[in-house]
Amino acid sequence: LRQGIPEVIFGSGKTPEQIIGIASAMQARGGENILITRLCTESAKIVGEQIPLTYDPMSKIGIVGRKSEITASGTIAVATGGTSDMPVAEEAALTAEVLGNKVVRLYDVGVAGLHRLLSKLDVLMDAQVVIAVAGMEGALASVVGGLVDCPVIAVPTSIGYGSNFNGLSALLSMLNSCASGVSVVNIDNGFGAGYLASMINHIGGNR
Amino acid sequence: LRQGIPEVIFGSGKTPEQIIGIASAMQARGGENILITRLCTESAKIVGEQIPLTYDPMSKIGIVGRKSEITASGTIAVATGGTSDMPVAEEAALTAEVLGNKVVRLYDVGVAGLHRLLSKLDVLMDAQVVIAVAGMEGALASVVGGLVDCPVIAVPTSIGYGSNFNGLSALLSMLNSCASGVSVVNIDNGFGAGYLASMINHIGGNR
Amino acid sequence: LRQGIPEVIFGSGKTPEQIIGIASAMQARGGENILITRLCTESAKIVGEQIPLTYDPMSKIGIVGRKSEITASGTIAVATGGTSDMPVAEEAALTAEVLGNKVVRLYDVGVAGLHRLLSKLDVLMDAQVVIAVAGMEGALASVVGGLVDCPVIAVPTSIGYGSNFNGLSALLSMLNSCASGVSVVNIDNGFGAGYLASMINHIGGNR
Amino acid sequence: LRQGIPEVIFGSGKTPEQIIGIASAMQARGGENILITRLCTESAKIVGEQIPLTYDPMSKIGIVGRKSEITASGTIAVATGGTSDMPVAEEAALTAEVLGNKVVRLYDVGVAGLHRLLSKLDVLMDAQVVIAVAGMEGALASVVGGLVDCPVIAVPTSIGYGSNFNGLSALLSMLNSCASGVSVVNIDNGFGAGYLASMINHIGGNR
Amino acid sequence: LRQGIPEVIFGSGKTPEQIIGIASAMQARGGENILITRLCTESAKIVGEQIPLTYDPMSKIGIVGRKSEITASGTIAVATGGTSDMPVAEEAALTAEVLGNKVVRLYDVGVAGLHRLLSKLDVLMDAQVVIAVAGMEGALASVVGGLVDCPVIAVPTSIGYGSNFNGLSALLSMLNSCASGVSVVNIDNGFGAGYLASMINHIGGNR
Amino acid sequence: LRQGIPEVIFGSGKTPEQIIGIASAMQARGGENILITRLCTESAKIVGEQIPLTYDPMSKIGIVGRKSEITASGTIAVATGGTSDMPVAEEAALTAEVLGNKVVRLYDVGVAGLHRLLSKLDVLMDAQVVIAVAGMEGALASVVGGLVDCPVIAVPTSIGYGSNFNGLSALLSMLNSCASGVSVVNIDNGFGAGYLASMINHIGGNR
Amino acid sequence: LRQGIPEVIFGSGKTPEQIIGIASAMQARGGENILITRLCTESAKIVGEQIPLTYDPMSKIGIVGRKSEITASGTIAVATGGTSDMPVAEEAALTAEVLGNKVVRLYDVGVAGLHRLLSKLDVLMDAQVVIAVAGMEGALASVVGGLVDCPVIAVPTSIGYGSNFNGLSALLSMLNSCASGVSVVNIDNGFGAGYLASMINHIGGNR
Amino acid sequence: LRQGIPEVIFGSGKTPEQIIGIASAMQARGGENILITRLCTESAKIVGEQIPLTYDPMSKIGIVGRKSEITASGTIAVATGGTSDMPVAEEAALTAEVLGNKVVRLYDVGVAGLHRLLSKLDVLMDAQVVIAVAGMEGALASVVGGLVDCPVIAVPTSIGYGSNFNGLSALLSMLNSCASGVSVVNIDNGFGAGYLASMINHIGGNR
Ligand SMILES: Nc1ncnc2c1ncn2[C@@H]1O[C@H](COP(=O)(O)O)[C@@H](O)[C@H]1O
Ligand SMILES: Nc1ncnc2c1ncn2[C@@H]1O[C@H](COP(=O)(O)O)[C@@H](O)[C@H]1O
Ligand SMILES: Nc1ncnc2c1ncn2[C@@H]1O[C@H](COP(=O)(O)O)[C@@H](O)[C@H]1O
Ligand SMILES: Nc1ncnc2c1ncn2[C@@H]1O[C@H](COP(=O)(O)O)[C@@H](O)[C@H]1O
Ligand SMILES: [Mg+2]
Ligand SMILES: [Mg+2]
Ligand SMILES: [Mg+2]
Ligand SMILES: [Mg+2]
Ligand SMILES: [Mg+2]
Ligand SMILES: [Mg+2]
Ligand SMILES: [Mg+2]
Ligand SMILES: [Mg+2]
Repeated sequence: LRQGIPEVIFGSGKTPEQIIGIASAMQARGGENILITRLCTESAKIVGEQIPLTYDPMSKIGIVGRKSEITASGTIAVATGGTSDMPVAEEAALTAEVLGNKVVRLYDVGVAGLHRLLSKLDVLMDAQVVIAVAGMEGALASVVGGLVDCPVIAVPTSIGYGSNFNGLSALLSMLNSCASGVSVVNIDNGFGAGYLASMINHIGGNR
Repeated sequence: LRQGIPEVIFGSGKTPEQIIGIASAMQARGGENILITRLCTESAKIVGEQIPLTYDPMSKIGIVGRKSEITASGTIAVATGGTSDMPVAEEAALTAEVLGNKVVRLYDVGVAGLHRLLSKLDVLMDAQVVIAVAGMEGALASVVGGLVDCPVIAVPTSIGYGSNFNGLSALLSMLNSCASGVSVVNIDNGFGAGYLASMINHIGGNR
Repeated sequence: LRQGIPEVIFGSGKTPEQIIGIASAMQARGGENILITRLCTESAKIVGEQIPLTYDPMSKIGIVGRKSEITASGTIAVATGGTSDMPVAEEAALTAEVLGNKVVRLYDVGVAGLHRLLSKLDVLMDAQVVIAVAGMEGALASVVGGLVDCPVIAVPTSIGYGSNFNGLSALLSMLNSCASGVSVVNIDNGFGAGYLASMINHIGGNR
Repeated sequence: LRQGIPEVIFGSGKTPEQIIGIASAMQARGGENILITRLCTESAKIVGEQIPLTYDPMSKIGIVGRKSEITASGTIAVATGGTSDMPVAEEAALTAEVLGNKVVRLYDVGVAGLHRLLSKLDVLMDAQVVIAVAGMEGALASVVGGLVDCPVIAVPTSIGYGSNFNGLSALLSMLNSCASGVSVVNIDNGFGAGYLASMINHIGGNR
Repeated sequence: LRQGIPEVIFGSGKTPEQIIGIASAMQARGGENILITRLCTESAKIVGEQIPLTYDPMSKIGIVGRKSEITASGTIAVATGGTSDMPVAEEAALTAEVLGNKVVRLYDVGVAGLHRLLSKLDVLMDAQVVIAVAGMEGALASVVGGLVDCPVIAVPTSIGYGSNFNGLSALLSMLNSCASGVSVVNIDNGFGAGYLASMINHIGGNR
Repeated sequence: LRQGIPEVIFGSGKTPEQIIGIASAMQARGGENILITRLCTESAKIVGEQIPLTYDPMSKIGIVGRKSEITASGTIAVATGGTSDMPVAEEAALTAEVLGNKVVRLYDVGVAGLHRLLSKLDVLMDAQVVIAVAGMEGALASVVGGLVDCPVIAVPTSIGYGSNFNGLSALLSMLNSCASGVSVVNIDNGFGAGYLASMINHIGGNR
Repeated sequence: LRQGIPEVIFGSGKTPEQIIGIASAMQARGGENILITRLCTESAKIVGEQIPLTYDPMSKIGIVGRKSEITASGTIAVATGGTSDMPVAEEAALTAEVLGNKVVRLYDVGVAGLHRLLSKLDVLMDAQVVIAVAGMEGALASVVGGLVDCPVIAVPTSIGYGSNFNGLSALLSMLNSCASGVSVVNIDNGFGAGYLASMINHIGGNR
Repeated sequence: LRQGIPEVIFGSGKTPEQIIGIASAMQARGGENILITRLCTESAKIVGEQIPLTYDPMSKIGIVGRKSEITASGTIAVATGGTSDMPVAEEAALTAEVLGNKVVRLYDVGVAGLHRLLSKLDVLMDAQVVIAVAGMEGALASVVGGLVDCPVIAVPTSIGYGSNFNGLSALLSMLNSCASGVSVVNIDNGFGAGYLASMINHIGGNR
């Protein structure tokens, strides 16, 4: 019924053995660029001893059968409010890269220091899609959404404390954005944002 | 700094006089296809007596200077779980049409009667973007997201009662969708979904 | 005043010594098929050294005096959205089996890949009761409820992250199901679902 | 794909004209015992002028083509905590009666006056299914669940004030019931409880 | 024990007669510039017939014995995200003016159109205190807080819909601001912000 | 200004050294029956090596200078729903005993097995005050409140899982009790209940 | 099983006819001092035309067969934070008076003007029980609880706006009181507080 | 665009190496009095081995290049409800001191023992700004706000248990304060309060 399911394994809660099993089966079926998300460092070590694995500790992404090729003509910009949002941003960026996209990173450009964001305006303006990753008050998505005219995928992160309530403040903030063209994925869901950005970017044509 | 702001007036909480004033100014600047959202029937009547207005009572959208022209090559599908979701769906559909998109409607195809959805699979499959509008448990977004390979914009509605908590159940359901390619806008935000869908659809090229 | 209380021990928060004491007393009274739920592997080891115990590490269920006998004529189907829901599903399935029911398992048939569920439609249709176990958006309960005409017991699980809020999204989703015949038990309460399913299945007559 | 969908119209949010249209179409297809739930008195008056309608103002249920026939051999007991819960209870009771069940009512037997409940113990014990309807602290479901050995369908109501939060207190109370055999439907969902009770009662055999 | 309590009457929930009584007593004690907040238009009419009253329908503030005099040397800037936030902003501005402050208004400078805010940067930079009034995602407080070096008093408003939850999104956003120097008052509490701003402004010295 | 402050130390978050210091100072001032609540086993060991300490590991209460004397004529009954509620119940019971009260314990008399509670009715009826300790659905407080005519102090506990939300379900249930004479303290606050019960019991006269 | 149920009718949601029926039946059984709470002015008018009724519009309490007699020797003090809390306070005070208690009122002594409370310290100190009624931040209960050595019954009210969330702020504040001897009833539950205070006051002996 | 950004590093979630890098760069640019907040003891040890660091374990603040100099003429008073609130209070106090303020500490003056607070009234009255730090019911802010006529910055802490919900009770309490001149920062945000207090204090003039 359904086509084009990406070769993705949600690593969280799976044993290294289970992951090796699933990835090997995928490879046997001819799978390339198999993405394993939420793969902790310990599991990555064990998996990597059995099958060739490219592992990125910041995003916790492992890739089996990495094949670099850019297939879409546009660019995806990934922006973060702070440096603590980087693991989620990298999950989005790496996912998009594996799926064939050119990605530019604009990290630590949060709204409390607007000049940092404004100095990168040209990069934002050139993007086909922007992924805005922010915790705390999540204001980045609204500010970016007001500046650019392309789709903005907002990713609230659980970065913060107190009345942040594990990402609730950023989530509600982003859902209530007064900028048009902004939509939201789950808290910390970098993978989902990267995947959707890739879909949209490929609508814009191939390289 | 910012370009391409659509001529949109958020009608809720504005007096007919204020709306006439803003719309007239926009027209004087040469604006066409001016969208007035959340315009109640009473206000529409008064506004329509002063300036030529096309008004749709279901979506509560008024249009000044309607100019029908389809500019994007792809199609946007708008699906709803029930008939009660139609006002929100029409806000999305009309917004997209005014912004130059071809729209197909698939209403009342909720997951409790899956055959209704499956019988329209070809229409869904042909779309460039799908807008999934649903209240209550909001399962439509996940089911549609699992069937199609294009971006799905999920719109939770406030339809329901009890532990629906004014749309919270559908909102959380859609944010936690296990289907890839799904993002979410605010509860009952048909305008935002239609606007974003138009952005994505235009990335796919002009007619 | 009350009859037919099953011989069940809620293991969570009890020491191995307390469990051995209660189970031994039950056995002395002639108890068979004594169910110990939420029994961790460490406790199971200690208990098993003192009294004969069948232990299942996935569901964390221990059984003292296991006596296999199927007493109800109908079948209970246990379905899950993903593989991570299996511990909860097995708690339900094992409970139902110990209470004398025939159980069929349909695991990992979540709505993001509808073909997996539809390919098992005959099994679902043959069941007297269905237990639908799902985390994240919990859409499985609605889809199954729309397909079958028998009672569906929905079990939300705490599987997910972010705005899942430890099972809240699946719980609200299931409570708001637009399918008829669906009722809900507590988050992760596989035991409760298995027990209730057995009650209903036995209403349908004995083998 | 799906069979046995009952002829039910959710009246809330539909105009009398829409209801007349749907009900007439159902009748034309040979439908009997068409249930219209959440039908307000004003709409009922208008509908009743066009098609023969039996209307019950307490439960807000209208029935077109009422055909009384009891098809299941068992009995459904509907109990409420207070008199304010009666509209929800009657929605459940009438739904069950229309679907062919014998129903006994035990109203105002809340746990703050336990003797009222205990004096009706024989009636509860004879039931095939019990529907426990309660607002405020919703303790009725647990107490009944501890007394009977048949399935208990708990219906939280929005009756109460303050920290009741529109039924949340009763809902959470019922979901956390320490009695086995209890499952829960949405706040004020009398229809859902009556429908499910009928399903279970018919498993017990026909009259 | 306590000194300097301002002559303020919280009008909400008081009858015109009660308000006239309290205000007259205050006047008899020599009170000037008596502020009546949350005074609806109907009550204002009745009160104004008995005692000389200056009434502002937007902020719902009535003043008895208005005496214009600016006592503090600095300036308070009041900024809003949208036009719908104006009633709350005016409650703050008028309160501050009555308490002897020079006030500048920057309305409808929300972050979705950043140029509007940036074009007023000199005004913001000149202020002794800024009051940032915003609903929806409440991002204005963070952006302003990042631009200026004076205290920012953030006032979340209940403007918005859906997951705005009556001002919760703006409230959480403002409490989690990553800009330093920002503190928050209750949702829609323009009076509290104006009062506090006046306190701070007067610390800066008299005119 | 204030008299009769009990000699109580809230042990949670204090180092053994701090506790020894405070308790020694109290003893030096002539203090007897000094209560240390929330004292973990490790701290108790260290404290006990320095000053004579009676320690109860279940309630986590330590007493310095224990002096047994019953001063009030009435009796306090402490009832729990399950065995897991015992630590909280013992915090209440021991506090009351140290403050000079006769205490009777009725543990594991939850409403899912009503006969256990009813068989102890005489004991409940004889009490001057009842402390009802329960987690999960917290129905015990309502049932007890309906049976007795003396004040009932309800203590919700955090025992449970899923939609229990760390005691929220029991808390809301108890606040919404339809029985008269019931009031509520914080989740797991056995100390507060024991202290208040002692106050009320001493109003009833001394021994 | 149960004795001493007071003759109380919860008027909210009952028709005047129902109330007349219940009250007449109570009177026929010899009932005196029948309390009808939450009785709106319109209903009171109709009821009063049929049976002799004393009605107090502030507390919305009606009394049939009023018989003034003070039976307890102690005094109950009822304090409020503001004047808006008076309807709830009067519900408590009148309930206590009807049940035979001497009541003193200390209204508008909220903590933002501590001198008002401290000037009444002797009255508070003389009470057998204090009922502390407060909305907004509900701090009154803690301050009073720290001053007196008798039981304090805290009644949160729904007075406030914004993040008051209909009484939630006062409710949580009171449940977390760091003063000993404080317990809490439901938001706006003046009746429950008056009833419990009467119970405690009567423990202290009769007049 | 922006001036006067203080040299502050948010230590939480940064490695010692990252902190050393950032602090060294700041020093190289001529930075003095570099504040590192939320620096755990382990990291402080490592950082201190590389660059000269003054570390305070209670507030978890590290300072590089400490330069004591008081620049503002007024005084900041920091008050706490209990001793457990001291880490947050010290974060505020040290921040203010590093920024050039004279700070007086009033710890453990919570409202349950009002005499402790009232005995320090002169100190409070002399302050230019008060920081009120409290957990549990957070009543301190209202009481202090009612006593003083200067700005009060309220800091809710996460100290408490049960329905405290990690600081929510104190947060809501403070936001709903009926005292004028009170504003609120995030739960446990001592730094933010100290920073804002310093801003306000410096408005009052230099030493
Ligand atoms: N129904 C709607 N929901 C959310 N945003 C809207 C809606 N209609 C219009 N808008 C937004 O509101 C802006 C106009 O707001 P205003 O200036 O208040 O009329 C437009 O630019 C849109 O981005
Ligand atoms: N996993 C579970 N979840 C909810 N209830 C359970 C579970 N396992 C056992 N129970 C219930 O707990 C009761 C036994 O509890 P206990 O007396 O504490 O061992 C049984 O009668 C069941 O009703
Ligand atoms: N709009 C407002 N929001 C919050 N507090 C207010 C408002 N207006 C007045 N107040 C406070 O209410 C007090 C007067 O209340 P009252 O005695 O009820 O009239 C004043 O001293 C102010 O502190
Ligand atoms: N378990 C407890 N829960 C709530 N409050 C307590 C508890 N134990 C002691 N307290 C209160 O805490 C006060 C002592 O606190 P501290 O000065 O921090 O030791 C006592 O006067 C009691 O009112
Ligand atoms: Mg944009
Ligand atoms: Mg898809
Ligand atoms: Mg079905
Ligand atoms: Mg049972
Ligand atoms: Mg700033
Ligand atoms: Mg009672
Ligand atoms: Mg006290
Ligand atoms: Mg003040």
